[in-house]
Amino acid sequence: MGYIHHEAHLRSSDVISDIVIGMSDGLTVPFALAAGLSGAVASSSLVVTAGIAEIVAGSIAMGLGGYLAGRTEADHYSSERRREVAEVESVPEKEKEEVREVFAEMGLSPALQITIADELAKDKVKWVDFMMKYELGLDEPDPNRATKSAFTIGLSYVVGGLIPLTPYFLIKSPHEALLYSAGITLLCLFIFGYFKSKVTGQPPVSGALKVMLIGALAAAAAFGIARLVGG
Amino acid sequence: MGYIHHEAHLRSSDVISDIVIGMSDGLTVPFALAAGLSGAVASSSLVVTAGIAEIVAGSIAMGLGGYLAGRTEADHYSSERRREVAEVESVPEKEKEEVREVFAEMGLSPALQITIADELAKDKVKWVDFMMKYELGLDEPDPNRATKSAFTIGLSYVVGGLIPLTPYFLIKSPHEALLYSAGITLLCLFIFGYFKSKVTGQPPVSGALKVMLIGALAAAAAFGIARLVGG
Repeated sequence: MGYIHHEAHLRSSDVISDIVIGMSDGLTVPFALAAGLSGAVASSSLVVTAGIAEIVAGSIAMGLGGYLAGRTEADHYSSERRREVAEVESVPEKEKEEVREVFAEMGLSPALQITIADELAKDKVKWVDFMMKYELGLDEPDPNRATKSAFTIGLSYVVGGLIPLTPYFLIKSPHEALLYSAGITLLCLFIFGYFKSKVTGQPPVSGALKVMLIGALAAAAAFGIARLVGG
Repeated sequence: MGYIHHEAHLRSSDVISDIVIGMSDGLTVPFALAAGLSGAVASSSLVVTAGIAEIVAGSIAMGLGGYLAGRTEADHYSSERRREVAEVESVPEKEKEEVREVFAEMGLSPALQITIADELAKDKVKWVDFMMKYELGLDEPDPNRATKSAFTIGLSYVVGGLIPLTPYFLIKSPHEALLYSAGITLLCLFIFGYFKSKVTGQPPVSGALKVMLIGALAAAAAFGIARLVGG
């Protein structure tokens, strides 16, 4: 069958995933907000004010949200680890039983489950490592993850958000600015969606079209509803 | 040491995590945007228009983003599964070697690694299940996850976003409306942060304060910068 073996199971790095998180909302939400306001206000300067307020609000909310998520993950890991260390000391038989359960779920025979549990129990550090990873499904987080995450997400949001806003800085009529904003942003969403899909191992063109479609739908809906409310 | 054994390793369900995703941005970003505009425009009706445009934009972007993420996860799982099924057929020795590597990483002896790999290889379905879960770290996703996720995230964003906006519907002066909006929203952020922390197993009061602080910082920054830009 001409099958070539290579395990290209791509895993995006943390930084790339943070850029994707920040930029995907950053390109979409300020774009849609600006489009919505373009249908409801007379001057581009109001769109710029609202757009910048949104970029500041969104980047801080998402950046600090990322920081908090990172800290929570780190705290969670260390509190669970302390618990496992204590349990391995105080209730070793119960913990061995839990090791066996992990392998029972994998479909291994009871005899093999016991052999494995006894072997793992010889080294307490390894044993705790095992419980953390395979019983609880927790990987040790990078200690600087929270801070890096906050900056990467926040900055990506700002960069993404300034793209749709640029035409409103330069063109007085919000209707005219919207045309340029939509053109540039949909193009950027396409390019962004293309690379995002590549990185996550998805078909890039259809991924790019989906990302672009979300932006277009959000902008069209915001435009229609803001016009109804503001008009 | 009076240690009581109970493994209360809390894992929040998918729905709850979607509500948290939607509501945490929904309470924060429209609140901060409205606060920012309150410092830069003369009438509450503009804040309402911009706020509603933001809620529409944000809920669609996040909801469809959640849909896309769910679909991508499902597609990724089935394409990886097809690959593993093909590999188990075409290069079984290579795949057995990969099973052994998983157990080598756990710290098990080479003899045990071989015994386990041979036992798993007897049942091809179990073998593929094993590779999916333990080599690739992938769990089979719920087929309706994408759609449910989109609705839950989008609706939570709308509910969260309407809370800070309500005072602007009722009070003409945006400065006065902002006081009520900040009071109500910070209270809701505290309550939301409290339950979010409970659900994720974190200390609830400090978690609640952190969530409230993020909202307050985002709103204060948006207010300051929008005033600079718009003033």
